[in-house]
Amino acid sequence: MGSLAAQVPDLISFAPGHPDPSTFPWDAIRETAETLLRGRDANVLQYGGTRGYRPLLESLTNVLTSRGIASTLEERILTTGSQQALDLVGRVLLDPGDVVLVELPTYTGAITAFSNVRALLVGVPQDEDGVNLQALDETFQRQTSSGRRVKFLYVVPNFQNPTGLLISLQKRLALLEWAAQRDVLIVEDDPYGALYFPDSTTPEETRPIKADDVDGRVVYLGSFSKTLAPGFRVGWIVGSPQLTAKIELAKQAADLCSGSLDQRLVHRAIAAGLLGTRVNELRLHYQGKRTVMRQALDAELAGVLRWSPPRGGFFLWATVPPGLDADQLLMRAIQERVNYVAGKAFFVDGSGADTLRLCFSQATDDQIVEGVRRLARAIKGEIERYRDGGDAGAGTTGPAGATSAVSGISAPRG
Amino acid sequence: MGSLAAQVPDLISFAPGHPDPSTFPWDAIRETAETLLRGRDANVLQYGGTRGYRPLLESLTNVLTSRGIASTLEERILTTGSQQALDLVGRVLLDPGDVVLVELPTYTGAITAFSNVRALLVGVPQDEDGVNLQALDETFQRQTSSGRRVKFLYVVPNFQNPTGLLISLQKRLALLEWAAQRDVLIVEDDPYGALYFPDSTTPEETRPIKADDVDGRVVYLGSFSKTLAPGFRVGWIVGSPQLTAKIELAKQAADLCSGSLDQRLVHRAIAAGLLGTRVNELRLHYQGKRTVMRQALDAELAGVLRWSPPRGGFFLWATVPPGLDADQLLMRAIQERVNYVAGKAFFVDGSGADTLRLCFSQATDDQIVEGVRRLARAIKGEIERYRDGGDAGAGTTGPAGATSAVSGISAPRG
Repeated sequence: MGSLAAQVPDLISFAPGHPDPSTFPWDAIRETAETLLRGRDANVLQYGGTRGYRPLLESLTNVLTSRGIASTLEERILTTGSQQALDLVGRVLLDPGDVVLVELPTYTGAITAFSNVRALLVGVPQDEDGVNLQALDETFQRQTSSGRRVKFLYVVPNFQNPTGLLISLQKRLALLEWAAQRDVLIVEDDPYGALYFPDSTTPEETRPIKADDVDGRVVYLGSFSKTLAPGFRVGWIVGSPQLTAKIELAKQAADLCSGSLDQRLVHRAIAAGLLGTRVNELRLHYQGKRTVMRQALDAELAGVLRWSPPRGGFFLWATVPPGLDADQLLMRAIQERVNYVAGKAFFVDGSGADTLRLCFSQATDDQIVEGVRRLARAIKGEIERYRDGGDAGAGTTGPAGATSAVSGISAPRG
Repeated sequence: MGSLAAQVPDLISFAPGHPDPSTFPWDAIRETAETLLRGRDANVLQYGGTRGYRPLLESLTNVLTSRGIASTLEERILTTGSQQALDLVGRVLLDPGDVVLVELPTYTGAITAFSNVRALLVGVPQDEDGVNLQALDETFQRQTSSGRRVKFLYVVPNFQNPTGLLISLQKRLALLEWAAQRDVLIVEDDPYGALYFPDSTTPEETRPIKADDVDGRVVYLGSFSKTLAPGFRVGWIVGSPQLTAKIELAKQAADLCSGSLDQRLVHRAIAAGLLGTRVNELRLHYQGKRTVMRQALDAELAGVLRWSPPRGGFFLWATVPPGLDADQLLMRAIQERVNYVAGKAFFVDGSGADTLRLCFSQATDDQIVEGVRRLARAIKGEIERYRDGGDAGAGTTGPAGATSAVSGISAPRG
């Protein structure tokens, strides 16, 4: 689908989860690069330590304490983006056949990383405030009584990719308690935590589960890709000293070390206070885009799509009218020159055919408005097609129940 | 041992296989970074394609054809350094229990990458012109008749890490023929091929096995770490379109994409012709260091150490007098403030206790001379210690046979 979309001129894409490049701190990075390369310190372009550039590991202290997380240097390791963090965590923690519990839906990068080491990914439904606790424990029980080992629960508590969901503070604590009771680890992936929207979320509400982890049960993953720039490929892991030592060995075999210049560019941005001032602006920047998309959806697709307005991050998650298929709809959307990600890829249980992810982070305000208009044309056209198919009585041009489903649309939540 | 050595002031290190940072093209990179970041092309700091920055993939054509290798774009993929290339090749080609045939000794990064996917690494002795063909086939037969699948032969034909050995052209062709006959793949790792020493090697002698591969049997790995700078973490793989497609999927899960700025800096260096002019200088630069080390060894350790003067690359491989252990010797060497890598780590069969790797690429000429003097003090001191132990009749302070072994030193080859 990506290659098909690439051939469409003037396409407005809500597909890739990319930060807005207009927010990248070009001048600061250029000046830092100039200084670093003029200095001719050999280490700037040489192989570096596998665990990462020490001053950057140290300056993570500020980033982590601002999120309520206390950690020692021995508990930290830098990675080549947080995708590598997922990969290394999977390689170190999982044996073939081990079970990973994941949210339904969950991040595709985690699905592929954990699947690659032949783990079994088992989905748990989410409520509006996050993972359903009863379903979580039932799933755990079912897996362990089948003789399988449940190794960890993978969660993205802050503005999850793909749903944009924020897990409530109460539920975070309940998850931690549950994990202790069942003696499983939690792998907490937090790329979006700093990007809450002040109009609807307080910083306290994004408090990582790791901040309340007293017995080293939570492995915490972070990234500079969303707050600085993804092209540097700098992420990190906070875990027990034993775990990070194993991860360091795994990383040595995986890529020896992350980019030396890249890590220094990121470090200097933090040291100069750039990250702190930027996130305030980024929150408002992405909040504004979210508002534009919400208003456009209200204007164009109220009563047709169902969605919740996200309170942070990059993603708006929507459910299409019953009977429609988000994959089939995508063909028509691309004909209308708008793109999104069909939700099914985020579900490890094969469900989610009626869901889609709209990323509002990269498009301009005008593009968001126009893109939603195009999406509305695509959806309404598809509804017509199904209705016509249903009216013809054959039921062959649309899925079973399409006609009644379309008339039974629920009220939108957003 | 690394952390011990790190505490020794004024240590001269022949341990890490690092390029000489004084050769890094600082000004060119600084100016390119300035231009790239002033241009504010979003892609310079954004996520990139998993297969790599397309213009860099295209400019690999020059690098590869200069080495006699014809390949299409579909046969290439960029990696986060060539360590990632080893890792991805292992993950895509190997199942647990598969056999990889490797040289005795071989590169440790390959050992860890292939071991991590639970492959069985089986060593084949090398002659002066490379892998012993009879031993290779016998090893293959032994493994397959034990019911194991031999998936590929891993070789570093040009100035191997750790031995500095150059496989003869005749043997390269014989290896290719053998691989076809036995239907195994060859994974050819070539980070040092461009760095032959003109005083003893012609470019034709470094012709990769891949250059004569007509049926897609050779997977070829390369890197810019030794010819440009390692801090960019840019390597590559050339293989069949089917294989590189699988590797692309594996890389997507491993780190999504390599550094965007890094790949562009490398690309512009190639586009500006920098790589071509640099390698000529680098050949002479490292050849000079090799000569300094050879002369120092001749002066200090003739008749004690055995070695062959390398004809390219970064490494000089040496055998200590029989009875000495290179690991034990290292303790004394560090006391004398000189460092190397004990050879045992490079042998998958547990042998090699009497070998060591001296890297001459990073030290200055003066450091090489002084470092070899220190090494000579350490070795002679260790010989004394063993001889004293032997004279005492106990044989407990040194390995069995140490005394007679010391008197039975062979003539050096270098």
